[in-house]
Amino acid sequence: MILTITPNPALDVTYHLPRAQWGEVNRVETVSETAGGKGVNVARVLHRLGEAVACTGFLGGDTGDRLRALLSDVDQRWVLIPSPTRRTTAVVDADTTTLFNEPGPAVSESAWERLCALTADAVGDGDVVTVSGSMPPGTGDEALASVVGAARRRGARIVVDTSGPHLLAAARAGATLLKPNHHELRAATGCDDLAAGAQRLLDEGAAGVVVSRAEAGMIALVADSGRPQRTWQARPVELVHGNPTGAGDAAVAALARALHRNERPLPDILAEQLADAVALSAAAVARPVAGEVDLDMYARTRASVVASPGLDQH
Amino acid sequence: MILTITPNPALDVTYHLPRAQWGEVNRVETVSETAGGKGVNVARVLHRLGEAVACTGFLGGDTGDRLRALLSDVDQRWVLIPSPTRRTTAVVDADTTTLFNEPGPAVSESAWERLCALTADAVGDGDVVTVSGSMPPGTGDEALASVVGAARRRGARIVVDTSGPHLLAAARAGATLLKPNHHELRAATGCDDLAAGAQRLLDEGAAGVVVSRAEAGMIALVADSGRPQRTWQARPVELVHGNPTGAGDAAVAALARALHRNERPLPDILAEQLADAVALSAAAVARPVAGEVDLDMYARTRASVVASPGLDQH
Repeated sequence: MILTITPNPALDVTYHLPRAQWGEVNRVETVSETAGGKGVNVARVLHRLGEAVACTGFLGGDTGDRLRALLSDVDQRWVLIPSPTRRTTAVVDADTTTLFNEPGPAVSESAWERLCALTADAVGDGDVVTVSGSMPPGTGDEALASVVGAARRRGARIVVDTSGPHLLAAARAGATLLKPNHHELRAATGCDDLAAGAQRLLDEGAAGVVVSRAEAGMIALVADSGRPQRTWQARPVELVHGNPTGAGDAAVAALARALHRNERPLPDILAEQLADAVALSAAAVARPVAGEVDLDMYARTRASVVASPGLDQH
Repeated sequence: MILTITPNPALDVTYHLPRAQWGEVNRVETVSETAGGKGVNVARVLHRLGEAVACTGFLGGDTGDRLRALLSDVDQRWVLIPSPTRRTTAVVDADTTTLFNEPGPAVSESAWERLCALTADAVGDGDVVTVSGSMPPGTGDEALASVVGAARRRGARIVVDTSGPHLLAAARAGATLLKPNHHELRAATGCDDLAAGAQRLLDEGAAGVVVSRAEAGMIALVADSGRPQRTWQARPVELVHGNPTGAGDAAVAALARALHRNERPLPDILAEQLADAVALSAAAVARPVAGEVDLDMYARTRASVVASPGLDQH
């Protein structure tokens, strides 16, 4: 099975109005809510694709209860905490979308220990664990490392999509795949060149790195002990317009599914499946709500993605 | 006692961040919550002034529970409804404040009947009822009229601060005082001239009208059967900078207190107390949070307000 971990989930609230005016009093026309957080999006995409997936992370309060109710069709195994789950508020008008992300509650060491224990119980050989999104405020390096370690000891492969020092911590802990976007990679490593930044993460201990570059597609690098590093790139032919939020989560879902489906070495899997990750990302962009994918678009794009070994300059 | 009615209260949520960027993803630094709604503000100001005040209206859900907890120092007599109370979200950065007001839940006829019964039980001769703010979605004219009627039959005086057709409905129902601001008066009556607009409300059946005009102060008109209509105006000398939200609510609090304190005819009360309403409004502007007043500023401004009979051209 695939276990998706969302350390800092959110109840996503969307305000719809014809025309939002900055600095003014705005009447919201309609309010909608969805279960949010990058790992929750990964779980929803995998569920939509018919994969056996379970969803965990830290959940609390009335907002947590509401999130759980909105996600009722997915297997949920949350670690409960006393503080309420955060909200995000999206203001959507005819012209633009503005997002306001609340910081979310701090999480105790014992809650992290419960998450490690839950992860160790849930997964085994051939299973996949994903960790997505921001960490709760005040989270140290060791917290994420302990979860990655717990999954590795059980023989599971781990995909991590986060940012800042936590990205480096996941690399050091020996994550199977890291999936930063190009901004996150540059910010975390300080390398302007994407290949150099990815190599930095491989040097830290990650087995592989996939860097998403919005409409420019993705590049993948795999550590290949001593021998020249192996690389691939893939890009969509058709430019998809829509909501890029959730595109990276769809990519993580595709990569997790690829790792779960076969036990072959990482290079072979990336060589085959990087194009699939790019296609599923495009299918997510085509849907207005993060965590959803347009399956027709997916099928169409899948055939047209151009994937090749090696890297151009980035 | 003074009973403040808030038909459409709100849990006011404020997002603080250094610099909000429209069309971008914004990290909220801190989140704060207060009990909101114009009638709730009126109650908080009266409570701060040491008046015997109770707070009612329609409340529901987790947001309603949260509002009640935040208002624990005030006597609360809410009519409970199944749907959750709305939120308002204020985005505050170094430069500006942007407000997003959710529409709020619809309210059943039986809930309005419960509010009328509660009002009739709560008040008697010499008491004052205030009705403030927006009405729940789908509220008809008769709803507000029935509350005004219930209060009148018990011998209470009624101050109404609302907008649109409900302002006209309150006039027809024979409210003691209407307190629109200049924008609301023009929108509701279609009269560009404020005196003409106020006269329209007197003709509909209101005993008196006080129009708030931001830093320009207030004008008051009283119906004087047959004889020439009686008018007053008052303006602050000192221009106060700050948060105008809640200034109108402070004015309603001052007027309600004036009506409650003495049984004399409305013209005498307005002649004496219009300046007080202007001063308390200024004291509300001086505070960053609606529902609070700066008592030093109040004392200072009270002495400097210029009040006189008659009206200039508006």
